[in-house]
Amino acid sequence: MALIVHKYGGTSMGSTERIKNVALRVAKWHDAGHQIIVVPSAMSGETNRLIRLAKEIMPEPDPRELDMIASTGEQVSVGLLSMALMAIGKQAVSYAGWQVAIRTDSAFTKARIQSIDDQRVRRDLDAGKIVIITGFQGVDEHGNIATLGRGGSDTSAVAVAAALKAAECLIFTDVDGVYTTDPRVVSEARRLKTVTFEEMLEMASLGSKVLQSRSVEFAGNYKVPTRVLSSLTDPMMPLEEEATSGTLISFEEDTHMEQAVISGIAFNRDEAKITVLGVPDRPGIAYQILGPIADANIEVDMIIQNQSVEGKTDFTFTVPRGEFNRSMDVLNNSVKAHIGAANIIGDNKVSKVSVVGVGMRSHVGIASQMFRTLSEEGINIQMISTSEIKISVLIDEKYMELAVRALHKAFELENA
Amino acid sequence: MALIVHKYGGTSMGSTERIKNVALRVAKWHDAGHQIIVVPSAMSGETNRLIRLAKEIMPEPDPRELDMIASTGEQVSVGLLSMALMAIGKQAVSYAGWQVAIRTDSAFTKARIQSIDDQRVRRDLDAGKIVIITGFQGVDEHGNIATLGRGGSDTSAVAVAAALKAAECLIFTDVDGVYTTDPRVVSEARRLKTVTFEEMLEMASLGSKVLQSRSVEFAGNYKVPTRVLSSLTDPMMPLEEEATSGTLISFEEDTHMEQAVISGIAFNRDEAKITVLGVPDRPGIAYQILGPIADANIEVDMIIQNQSVEGKTDFTFTVPRGEFNRSMDVLNNSVKAHIGAANIIGDNKVSKVSVVGVGMRSHVGIASQMFRTLSEEGINIQMISTSEIKISVLIDEKYMELAVRALHKAFELENA
Repeated sequence: MALIVHKYGGTSMGSTERIKNVALRVAKWHDAGHQIIVVPSAMSGETNRLIRLAKEIMPEPDPRELDMIASTGEQVSVGLLSMALMAIGKQAVSYAGWQVAIRTDSAFTKARIQSIDDQRVRRDLDAGKIVIITGFQGVDEHGNIATLGRGGSDTSAVAVAAALKAAECLIFTDVDGVYTTDPRVVSEARRLKTVTFEEMLEMASLGSKVLQSRSVEFAGNYKVPTRVLSSLTDPMMPLEEEATSGTLISFEEDTHMEQAVISGIAFNRDEAKITVLGVPDRPGIAYQILGPIADANIEVDMIIQNQSVEGKTDFTFTVPRGEFNRSMDVLNNSVKAHIGAANIIGDNKVSKVSVVGVGMRSHVGIASQMFRTLSEEGINIQMISTSEIKISVLIDEKYMELAVRALHKAFELENA
Repeated sequence: MALIVHKYGGTSMGSTERIKNVALRVAKWHDAGHQIIVVPSAMSGETNRLIRLAKEIMPEPDPRELDMIASTGEQVSVGLLSMALMAIGKQAVSYAGWQVAIRTDSAFTKARIQSIDDQRVRRDLDAGKIVIITGFQGVDEHGNIATLGRGGSDTSAVAVAAALKAAECLIFTDVDGVYTTDPRVVSEARRLKTVTFEEMLEMASLGSKVLQSRSVEFAGNYKVPTRVLSSLTDPMMPLEEEATSGTLISFEEDTHMEQAVISGIAFNRDEAKITVLGVPDRPGIAYQILGPIADANIEVDMIIQNQSVEGKTDFTFTVPRGEFNRSMDVLNNSVKAHIGAANIIGDNKVSKVSVVGVGMRSHVGIASQMFRTLSEEGINIQMISTSEIKISVLIDEKYMELAVRALHKAFELENA
């Protein structure tokens, strides 16, 4: 018997019929003797509907009031799931984040969880009840509802699992695990049985959409074993089979030992590259360029500054493609003349491809293998960025699929 | 400058366009120097949608979980209205019932308000903010959300007005006040400028749909001046004109002195009458008949027991027409043989017509005037029931409109 947290996404909760299926799956785990907490998302489409209503009233919605509105989708979900469990003979009780309480800071629409009070939940679990808690939201010290931002229910589930020291957090979703790369690009892509938190974190931030980055961070910090698995299977599939399906995100690096040096290839199609040419090479210049970009709430990813020649240097960075035009405007209007740059050029047809793996730490030659593979395919590398466990390159977007396939093959990821 | 509570129904909040109109009206009152609290209902159709979802999952929804779900409609409304006010330059803040806190008992789906904490609201009002509070709901001592039942937002508004000692509670609705009778039945029906709480209470319980009975009770108990007025007028109509429009429900009987003895004619079409014949006249018999009816959650209205003859009596009562068949079943299956009744007969084609007025207390002859009028129209009276300020008769439903028109004319209600 163990305490286990289940998380179900909006698609799994998308209709009353699907909610009944979720209830069957949850009940199966409870019948096996486990204590179960469920964190469901809002029914698919509901959060968008609520945000659309808000924007009809106020194009840039007030964050506190938006959270009042957007948080209701999950509240409906928990009530429905609780009743679906009662309807099949289970004892269940639902709570909104403020009732537990899940305490957050006051950064409305992007709040962070500070603490979770486990008393009420623990009492219900000990009384044999299945406890359903709203994802995506909590309450600040002044009693205001604050949401965690898009995908926040993943974080809620992991945070609840951490607070209650759950044996495992199961993230049920519409994919059946984490793959060596996107199977739509490389048909030989293989599901990983385990992946480390660090690898998962890199993959999430590099564009893999399986889990929200912050939930992976949380799982890593609090060492919550987290499993990504499918909610599209038969809810009555044998529990033993389900319990080992999907991909386990593990905090023990040694469970990883038998695996390959590289775990996966991540990519992000929607990148844009901007270069500020002929910048005087003096202290503070990076801040003068990127400060106005940050002030405009634009996220910067890769950053490179070249060796200066005759007191001048070039400064290059990447932004999400959707922010390319706004970034160019900011630089042309507020930065160029101010810092005395020669010119500003950009390219919004670039993509990023990354190889990720904790094994990289102890293996030399991964970078050279990667660069050789790309060179053999005639793909030019525009930028390079590395961390301890990943190497990312920026390339022309038209070569992206080719690069991913070639690297997947070169690192032999199709073999278990 | 005064503290004023506005309440807007689901139709007034039915779309983002209408919510913007509500904001204009509220802002007009705030601009005139008043402190304003608004209690809006859920957008029209929303509560029904939520209850439908719940019933798809669980045909008889668990009350606590149903309240979790049903309470979200008002939470969306308050967020939207708050933003609509911000969008036109007002400071506003929304609260769910639990945030204020509006404390209720734990009778989920039909909870009663026990207390309201005014501190947080008072502070916001003093800071110049317009405060929006969810109708229909509060929080019990264990932190569970509890709703007040259908129409509960009227009660919330009056309760908030009572707790904060508001100068007036304005109930904006889709009728422009309380009429001497239904204008669809009597075209000469006249809007009342004022009506006492007692009269309003009788009218509400006798079938007038303008206000929920419980909100009128609350207004009476706490002496909250409450005005029913139209939300369909131009939101920018002059405030002086709007402030005296509609019908004021007053707690001062003397404001009523210039008015007629009778204030209005109420009626309820959907009645059914049941008579238990040949009942032994012994103590406890009324309980033995009505106990099983109450246990089946059927509301009984008028009750008459005849003088007994030779130790036997007849016992007659009325129920809502929709409960007629169920009531007959209960009596035939669980009561008839048990008490040794001779027979049970019923008629589900009857209606109730009532004349209401506080002036009745000091005027003899109202009853005889009423009975004479009906007799002149050839209408047979089947049952009579009286209170201090109303007389109700049960008649064949086919004469209902005729009776209402004849009484409206006989008591000269068309004249101001």
